[in-house]
Amino acid sequence: MTDLIETLKGALSPGGVLTGEDAQAQAQSRWTRLGTPLAVLRPVSTAEVSTILKLAHAAGQPVVPWGGKTGLVDGAQADGALALSLERMNAIEDLDTAAGLMTVQAGCVLQTACEAAEALGWLLPLDLGSRGSATIGGNISTNAGGNRVLRWGMMRDMVLGLEAVLADGTVVSSMNRLVKNNAGYDLKALFVGTEGTLGVVTRAVLRLRARPASQDTAFVGVEAFDDLPRLLRRLERGLGGALSAFEVMWADFHALVTTPPARGRPPLEGRYPYYVLVESMGGEPAEDQARFERVLMGALEDGEIADAAIAKSKAEREAMWALRDDVAQTGRNAPIIAFDVSLGIGDMEAYVDGVRAAMAARWPGEASLVVFGHMGDGNLHLIAGMGSRESADLHALEDIVYRPLRAIGGSVSAEHGIGLQKREYLAWSRSGPEIALMRTLKASLDPRGILNPGKVFAA
Amino acid sequence: MTDLIETLKGALSPGGVLTGEDAQAQAQSRWTRLGTPLAVLRPVSTAEVSTILKLAHAAGQPVVPWGGKTGLVDGAQADGALALSLERMNAIEDLDTAAGLMTVQAGCVLQTACEAAEALGWLLPLDLGSRGSATIGGNISTNAGGNRVLRWGMMRDMVLGLEAVLADGTVVSSMNRLVKNNAGYDLKALFVGTEGTLGVVTRAVLRLRARPASQDTAFVGVEAFDDLPRLLRRLERGLGGALSAFEVMWADFHALVTTPPARGRPPLEGRYPYYVLVESMGGEPAEDQARFERVLMGALEDGEIADAAIAKSKAEREAMWALRDDVAQTGRNAPIIAFDVSLGIGDMEAYVDGVRAAMAARWPGEASLVVFGHMGDGNLHLIAGMGSRESADLHALEDIVYRPLRAIGGSVSAEHGIGLQKREYLAWSRSGPEIALMRTLKASLDPRGILNPGKVFAA
Ligand SMILES: Cc1cc2nc3c(=O)[nH]c(=O)nc-3n(C[C@H](O)[C@H](O)[C@H](O)COP(=O)(O)OP(=O)(O)OC[C@H]3O[C@@H](n4cnc5c(N)ncnc54)[C@H](O)[C@@H]3O)c2cc1C
Ligand SMILES: Cc1cc2nc3c(=O)[nH]c(=O)nc-3n(C[C@H](O)[C@H](O)[C@H](O)COP(=O)(O)OP(=O)(O)OC[C@H]3O[C@@H](n4cnc5c(N)ncnc54)[C@H](O)[C@@H]3O)c2cc1C
Repeated sequence: MTDLIETLKGALSPGGVLTGEDAQAQAQSRWTRLGTPLAVLRPVSTAEVSTILKLAHAAGQPVVPWGGKTGLVDGAQADGALALSLERMNAIEDLDTAAGLMTVQAGCVLQTACEAAEALGWLLPLDLGSRGSATIGGNISTNAGGNRVLRWGMMRDMVLGLEAVLADGTVVSSMNRLVKNNAGYDLKALFVGTEGTLGVVTRAVLRLRARPASQDTAFVGVEAFDDLPRLLRRLERGLGGALSAFEVMWADFHALVTTPPARGRPPLEGRYPYYVLVESMGGEPAEDQARFERVLMGALEDGEIADAAIAKSKAEREAMWALRDDVAQTGRNAPIIAFDVSLGIGDMEAYVDGVRAAMAARWPGEASLVVFGHMGDGNLHLIAGMGSRESADLHALEDIVYRPLRAIGGSVSAEHGIGLQKREYLAWSRSGPEIALMRTLKASLDPRGILNPGKVFAA
Repeated sequence: MTDLIETLKGALSPGGVLTGEDAQAQAQSRWTRLGTPLAVLRPVSTAEVSTILKLAHAAGQPVVPWGGKTGLVDGAQADGALALSLERMNAIEDLDTAAGLMTVQAGCVLQTACEAAEALGWLLPLDLGSRGSATIGGNISTNAGGNRVLRWGMMRDMVLGLEAVLADGTVVSSMNRLVKNNAGYDLKALFVGTEGTLGVVTRAVLRLRARPASQDTAFVGVEAFDDLPRLLRRLERGLGGALSAFEVMWADFHALVTTPPARGRPPLEGRYPYYVLVESMGGEPAEDQARFERVLMGALEDGEIADAAIAKSKAEREAMWALRDDVAQTGRNAPIIAFDVSLGIGDMEAYVDGVRAAMAARWPGEASLVVFGHMGDGNLHLIAGMGSRESADLHALEDIVYRPLRAIGGSVSAEHGIGLQKREYLAWSRSGPEIALMRTLKASLDPRGILNPGKVFAA
């Protein structure tokens, strides 16, 4: 390997190869285990990425792509591999304000891209808590979701075109700029959500949306689970396409984020089993606000909501979002284990109650469960607090959380992906022939198995 | 082959194998050449589809999937092949009104599926002129688009899960019902828009949307091309997500559909170089109508539109759509050749003018060109009338229409696909490495090349 690394030093721009302590210093993240890479490579161009992969392919040397290292499933773990960081390929190459398109390098940080779009009157609608570090390439490779999927979809829906480098160094430039293009197969899908196992994403063309002129936000209390889907449908229908968030919090989550040491305070007087942060974005501020209030009033009259606080200022809106985003409070139940599942709304109440009961039965008085999520997308986050228990109980907990999903067609990973952490459970959400077909793709695109090996499924 | 056909007769349900005249009687379509299949197979279940493919794979016998036979690129041409018709697999298996999901067999006719959804308060938003014959399986395999892509996307965006049978008979059931599911690779993409070359789609789970309560329609006249993108952006912003159609007609199209023998009459007094059919769908009829009028009034005041007629009744709305849909009038320029290209809005005016000029230069006084399309998606239909010319001029015409797209990153097929007809031009919209990667996929999923061989690219 020293040979390969020496060759790379000669082939890449200055600063392109970090080894030893310099490499280890890069292999740190609050969110994920990055392991001990042989070296951290920092190409400055697609051509350099291609050079790296050509050499690694010839040597049979594993390569692990790195973006912002905010992934939550240890997908960027690089033990014994070459870490290929996109950090120096972070330019916004073009922002076409007539067409509403942005061309960006994979290492560009999401927030940077969003702010550039907004400055020119456009919206890049992807919105996640990790926006300040996560990269466009990481968002693509994990098909990231977030708070506004309900309205604008996931990363998959925002990528019109991309460029990727295959395992053998072949550059596949598929930088389509058209909403509609049925000339041949859609190759983007090979790289969106495949966690760096089929290619390294180097650039992308993103579709922007008209930046909304209005933003209306409410925090509502709901008495019964069944009212939640009814409320969601009412908002979808009544707001005519403008609904942009429907974030549900179970009472346990609400309690955590509204009691000290959390800085948040309850927006509503009463206490309810469920709370929802509702948001709508439109084009006419005064009329949109009136409509938002009208539709919520209807929900109040029909008993779907018990109480509602409507944000009357930017500060009030931000305070509501701060509650939803104060996920760090779940750390008060540490050690915690976070799950990211999806299931039909109709199954959610029984599922959460079942998980809670099974945890209480297995670890009486010790375990806790905090639940919240993007309910409009069927996506729930479950944060299990394990009391004094050791991580030896992890498997038992995973069994409690994941097993019931099998019968109801749920997913063990709504948005974070499989990485290393959920590999064992892939078969609980996907069938044998599906996994075999994934392996067929992997074998045909990366026959030597050098691209992020062992992620998604065992090599 | 007689052996294979005899075996199939024994293996499929009664009526499952048509040969001779019975087969030829099925190989008829107003829209596409279907050739002379060896036999027409009509399986009644996924298991039967699997049986067919297993046997065909063993025999190295080409199989061509057939849906509603409305495809416009000869993608279902089945000379010397077994035609596999999904017509007997046309059930709506489930309509989940709580979740807004429909499970449907591939042979179900689009209109049947749409009407079933609407009857229960939901919307399957795909809307095409061929809705009465085209099937869900055909829509998936061609990634069909249509009139409402602007708001709800293409078929790709409506398919949550699907079941497909691979070339060797393996059934891959990927009937995901979740909006968000990042557990492993998204396999649907292998079958959406791949024109039956990678698998036979047998079933699908479709995402439904809340059925809108309001529908506001206007027919507007526009003086200058540059006003069109401005108007589009204004509507996107002002209507806050409710804009559902932006169908542009060049004056030549408008003239054809508003003069006898066409039954349509001009909705506006004046004559303009461009007309747009604008539609918005929302949740509150009275307020939506007021907003629609307000936003259009703003466009009138700022000079983006010269005149507007707003439909005041269902009849008026239908009359406006009848103009847009009266594509058959282009037959008055027969023989005609239809193109379906996409390109950036900023390039459209010069492109259309250039094509028109090149045709006039080559065939002075004989050629005609009629233009209209889903401009919100960058998608234009060009209908070339060739006067007394012979089809020997087809290549010259294709060159005139397709060649300029290369420099501007346009697509030779916005929505109809490549099939047999556009095969030669695939390389004008896609790069060498892209096509090589498509071939890699084809070789790995269909190593014997039996699935719709020769379509998309030469075998
Ligand atoms: C506080 C917080 C909140 C979050 N909220 C959400 C949320 O709401 N929704 C959501 O979906 N996720 C969320 N995440 C998860 C994470 O932020 C996303 O998965 C993000 O998209 C990862 O981007 P990244 O650049 O950090 O990728 P990394 O963590 O660096 O990598 C993630 C995976 O992608 C691969 N990869 C990275 N870059 C490339 C590339 N250029 N080419 C090929 N493969 C590549 C890696 O090998 C790895 O497998 C959250 C994470 C945190 C820490
Ligand atoms: C009047 C008219 C208007 C149209 N308007 C539009 C429009 O607005 N937008 C648009 O996108 N298209 C449009 N089309 C084109 C056509 O209707 C669509 O492509 C439609 O999706 C084809 O469906 P089908 O069932 O008729 O497929 P077919 O014509 O039967 O087949 C089309 C292709 O798909 C394959 N196929 C069919 N079924 C399956 C299956 N189950 N599994 C695998 N492969 C399969 C076939 O082999 C073939 O390659 C229009 C066509 C007409 C005639």
